[in-house]
Parts: sequence; structure tokens; C-alpha cells
Amino acid sequence: MTFPRVGVVGGGQLARMLAPAAVALGVRLRVLAESPDASAAQVVPDAPVGAADDLAAIRSFAAGCAVVTFDHEHVPQPVLAALVADGVVVRPGPQALLYAQDKAEMRARLTEAGISCPPWALVRSAEELAGFAERVGWPVVLKTPIGGYDGKGVLLVDDLAAASPWLARSAATGSALLAESRVDFVRELAVLVARSPMGQAAVWPVVETVQTDGICTEVIAPAPGLHPDLAARATAAALKIAGDLDVTGVFAVEMFEVPNAGGSGDFVVNELAMRPHNSGHWTIDGSVTSQFEQHLRAVLDLPLGSTEPTARWSVMVNVLGGDHPDLYRAYLHVMARDPGVKVHMYGKEVRPGRKVGHVTVCGSDLADVRARAQHAADYIRGTIIQ
Amino acid sequence: MTFPRVGVVGGGQLARMLAPAAVALGVRLRVLAESPDASAAQVVPDAPVGAADDLAAIRSFAAGCAVVTFDHEHVPQPVLAALVADGVVVRPGPQALLYAQDKAEMRARLTEAGISCPPWALVRSAEELAGFAERVGWPVVLKTPIGGYDGKGVLLVDDLAAASPWLARSAATGSALLAESRVDFVRELAVLVARSPMGQAAVWPVVETVQTDGICTEVIAPAPGLHPDLAARATAAALKIAGDLDVTGVFAVEMFEVPNAGGSGDFVVNELAMRPHNSGHWTIDGSVTSQFEQHLRAVLDLPLGSTEPTARWSVMVNVLGGDHPDLYRAYLHVMARDPGVKVHMYGKEVRPGRKVGHVTVCGSDLADVRARAQHAADYIRGTIIQ
Repeated sequence: MTFPRVGVVGGGQLARMLAPAAVALGVRLRVLAESPDASAAQVVPDAPVGAADDLAAIRSFAAGCAVVTFDHEHVPQPVLAALVADGVVVRPGPQALLYAQDKAEMRARLTEAGISCPPWALVRSAEELAGFAERVGWPVVLKTPIGGYDGKGVLLVDDLAAASPWLARSAATGSALLAESRVDFVRELAVLVARSPMGQAAVWPVVETVQTDGICTEVIAPAPGLHPDLAARATAAALKIAGDLDVTGVFAVEMFEVPNAGGSGDFVVNELAMRPHNSGHWTIDGSVTSQFEQHLRAVLDLPLGSTEPTARWSVMVNVLGGDHPDLYRAYLHVMARDPGVKVHMYGKEVRPGRKVGHVTVCGSDLADVRARAQHAADYIRGTIIQ
Repeated sequence: MTFPRVGVVGGGQLARMLAPAAVALGVRLRVLAESPDASAAQVVPDAPVGAADDLAAIRSFAAGCAVVTFDHEHVPQPVLAALVADGVVVRPGPQALLYAQDKAEMRARLTEAGISCPPWALVRSAEELAGFAERVGWPVVLKTPIGGYDGKGVLLVDDLAAASPWLARSAATGSALLAESRVDFVRELAVLVARSPMGQAAVWPVVETVQTDGICTEVIAPAPGLHPDLAARATAAALKIAGDLDVTGVFAVEMFEVPNAGGSGDFVVNELAMRPHNSGHWTIDGSVTSQFEQHLRAVLDLPLGSTEPTARWSVMVNVLGGDHPDLYRAYLHVMARDPGVKVHMYGKEVRPGRKVGHVTVCGSDLADVRARAQHAADYIRGTIIQ
């Protein structure tokens, strides 16, 4: 048998959702898990426990893997460099991952490549922040360049006083903050791309994402009413970034849609993610090839699969942890009410606000599909039952 | 966490394909595997090795499972009875499984229920076989009532001489043979049903199955040109059988389509299978709910999912082992040629004629879909490459 083994650093829900794709492809998975009961470790037989910044653990884990890829972007660059020096095939590679790990590097690189970003600056003091705000106006979005996710590491400030705790911490650690102009956007979009080492790329339709408190809560595929010109420009930009940065695997570009003079709308790039992404979970049920299968195909340099949707509309709603710990009982009722809802649970204990699963509904009537997906997610969470 | 554990006796490809469904549902699987590298044991962390007729092994395996179900129908009735006596929840139950294990019992029960079967008789001697053949004509199909599958345990005989080795063995073992009239059929059909302990049932569209040398090689969903009256009658019969036999889980009824006076066609029941079935593999890619997810929902007594197709046509072709052991290299070429092919590999070593995987293609043009699926399966097997 010549079927390869793919190593995945991190045992969260993204690694978990790679498992069904690997089963079908006949590819073996090995997961470097945070704990024996991590989301992915529950469903992957070969799941040693180890930390993503522990070089010895990752080295041992990588031995025998045809390629090493990631559930998250938190493997330190020196660890990645050591793996590459060992001859381990790492996809996406360290030089690409850098731009998903460090938002300051990302902004500099995208700006250099002529990709629309919000006005931005690196600031290290109240004076520098005041100067930036004078140019672009308040409020300003402050971001820690490294380590933020799901709204963490992001602070919207109306004035210098609000920024002072973050500026003080920045001064203490000696690390600059990324300051960005707040974009007055129409809505948020995401473009999901897969790119393989041989240079093949595939894109899914541009989607609309809805964020609540900095966490993605709903994704509508495709983005309703998106102007075809804007869809084409946004897709071209995502493909250009993937190529310029030599990304391999699945890659998400989060964007703000903004008005433009021509009326077709324009985009400003918000964030990059170099892995399967929440904005692509709908592809499991709504596309010929899911982002998880595609990620495996891409990092193995297999030909990519069709990204064609299988329904007119697909809507994904995240199930966030609420007050009710018993998800099983709740989802039983959801199944009874709506046989068409696709439920995906992550095997995680419920904590308030934690992503513990998602639901997807596909169909031809967008309002119906959205309402059913929202109801199902709310019900599982416990928002409706009292 | 209240998510249940489902035990599956047998670690073949059917158990393997339950794994992706369990991942999404958040349900834990435990597989009683034939060996540590059995098809399902490769992808399920909790896969103790044990034989299906070893009561001690099954007892230990069943402890902690909310329900025990099956990859195959070969667990002996005394073992099943002991499990039930222990208080283990077994689905489908022994009283239903009997009719999938013993074709003589099945024929008697279906005949009693008024379901169309081929003319049949139990024969223990040349005289009894000759008497049967005199009534229905040669050739006659001989079957060993217990233990046959994929064409094994079935012999088409033109005369008594051809039957004599089987008759001799029957006489030696004291077990009767099932003799059936060979049905002059138009084509073969299958009806896939899911039924839960609460009595809910769901059916997928009737499919056409193509058998080669007694092995299912192709499934077309739905059966092209099937008369709606026949579809309704065949479906009603499958539902009646499921209810009469108190089947739980996914259940397949294999039928022959035969001409009738009215022109809508008629059916004769050939075989029953009480588990996910080869004729339902297309549902993974071509239906809102796959037979594997549905089987888990049914045996857990969860509400059943929608059986609606997601495409006009789905065609599944089995990949049978050929002369080329390197499936990975071949499927790379298949992916490059046709990004819409869904490939499912079973992690099995290639042996001639062994089912080692399947492919599914969905689309709107039946001829195109069939040709693509057939080409992909042939290519992976090595029929085209030399």
C-alpha cells in the first residue's frame, strides 16, 4: 500500500473534520493533539499528545509523515525551520505561514503587492497612535500582530485613553501594535482558495460571513446579491495572494465589502488564514469537494477536486456553547423538527461562547435555509428551550 | 457529555464508512475488528480485535456501548441471544437478523407475508431437486441457506448432474439446500430502507443494481425509467418487510424486475441485507443523509434524516482488485482527469475481485455520469492502464 500519512499539528475541530475526508481518500492521519481527548484525538487512532512549540515532540510526530500540515497557525517559526531543515515536508511552508502568524508582516506584504487593505501603521507609543488617528480619524482598531483569533487580540478604541492599557503592555514587551482604520463596511466576505505545490488552484464561490462579538456565527454561500465584478475581483485577489505568498493547502481571505463609485462594490482585505476555515464549513454538505478533502489533496499535491456547489444556497451557523451542557438531547429535537439539517458536533465540552459544533442547511430558498439553520443552532445551544 | 457509544461487530468497509458519519454526529464508535489493520480499525481509535462468534470477546466489547450493531450478518444466534440476555441493546435484533442469516427462513417468512419471491423449495436429495425442477423447469438456482454473500453459496445448475457435488455435501452435513427457480428478469433493483425502534421509517429512491459474476459492480440512483407504480409497490413491499420483521437500522431489499401484463413491471424479492448495503453507497455523495449516518441515527433511535437526492443522477461503481496493487498512483490520474469523481478507498490490500473501494459521480446527464464513474473505477483498478 502506497497511501501516504498526513501529519496534522493540533487536535481541534479542523483536524477532526479532516478525518472523514481522509477515510474516503484512504489517506492515514496522524494528529499532534493537545490532550488525549482533544476533538480530533477522539476520532483519529494515531494521535500522540504534544505541544505545538515542542520541537522534540513535533520531530517525533513528523517521522513517517509524507507531509505535515496544521489545525492552527501557532507553530513557532524556529520549530518550523528546524522541521524543514530535517527534510520534513511542511505545507503550507514557514515562509507562507509567517503572513498568517504576523498581521504586521501580512499588512506590509499585501500593501507591497497592491492588495487593498485598511489604512494601517505600526505604533509603539501614544504619540504614534495619535499621529495615525490624526490621519485616518477615530475610532482605531488595535491588533496584537501575533496570536490573536476569534476577536481576541483586537480592540476598538475611540481615543488615546482607551488605548492606554494596550500601549502600556506594548511598551513593556517592546512589541509594536498594529493600528488600523476602522472600515465602514457593508458586510464581510470570505474567499476560500486551495493551492497545491504544483501550482494548481481552485476557489469556491465568495461567501458572506456574519460575525458576532468577533466570532464568525453564520456563513451564507454564495454571498447573496454580490456583484459579479466584485466576485471576480475578490477571487482574483485571493488567487494572487495565494500565488505571491506560495501558500499550499486551503487558504481563506477575509474581506470587508465597501461601497465604490461604480456601484459594484469594492473590497478591503481583513485577515488571512492558512488552513481550512470556518467560512468553508458549508462545503462539507454544500460542495462537490469539501475544504477538508481539498486541503488533504492540496498538501499531498494531488489534483484538486471540483468546488461546484451542490445546492443553490448553503447556510452554516456555528453552535456556540450556552448554558445547557446536554447537546445530545437538544439535537435530537432538531433532527425531529427538520430532517434536512446537517449537524456537526466537535466532541467538545460546552463552555459559554466556545464553538462546539455547527449546522448546515442547503436549499433553494435563502430565507428558509437561513431560518432553519439559525433555529437549529439556537436550539442545540439552548437559546430557545428554557 | 451524553453522546452515546455505538458498537459495531466487524471491521470491514461498512464499519469504516460509519466512521465519518459518527464524527459529524459526535457519536463514539467502537469496532470489534477481525485484525488490528482491518479496514475500519485503521480509522476508529477504539477497535479491539475479536471474532464475531467469540461470546467472551463480544461481551467485553459490548460493555459501555449504548447499542451494538453490525458490519455483517455472521454473528451466531446463540451469541446474539446471550447478549440480549445480558441486557445489551442489539439492533437489528436477533429475531430480525435471522431472516438475513438464513435464506430458508427468509423465503418462508416472505411467502407467508404475501411478498413475491421466486418459486422455491428446500431440497435434501436428488429426488427432491428433480421434483422441484419438474414443477419450475431447469435451470435451478441452488443456495446454501446460511453464510453466502457476493455470489458465494450460490450455484446455477442445468441438471441433476451439475447439482450432485452440492447435494452430496448437503447430505453429508444434513443441511437442506434452498432451490429457487431462475428468474428471467429485466434488471435488478434494490430498495434501501431505514427503520428505527420507535417505528419511524425512511426510504431512498429505488435504485438499479448491476451484478457481474454475482458481485454488485454498479448502482444507478434512481433506477432509470422505473415505472412510478412499480417504484411505489417495491417501496411499499420493502417497508412492509421492515415492519413485519421488526428490522431496525438500514435494511436493503434486493429485487428482480420482471415484466407484467399491465406494462408497469413487477418485482420478485431476491435477497435481504440488514445493514448498510453496497446498493446505498451512492447516498454518501448523492443524498442529504447517507445510509451510514442514517444507520447510526436509526440504531440510536434518533429521528431519521432526509433521504432526498442532491443530484438528478448518482452512479456508484465498485473498484474491484485487479492486477495493479498501487491504487494511490492510479487514483491520482483519475482525480486529474475528472475533478468531480468522489473516490472512496477501503484501506484494503488488493486481491483479484476483492472490493477495495468505490467511486461515485453525480450529475444531470445519466450517460455522462455512468461513463465517468465506470472510467474512474476501471482506471483505479488498472483495467485501462497497461
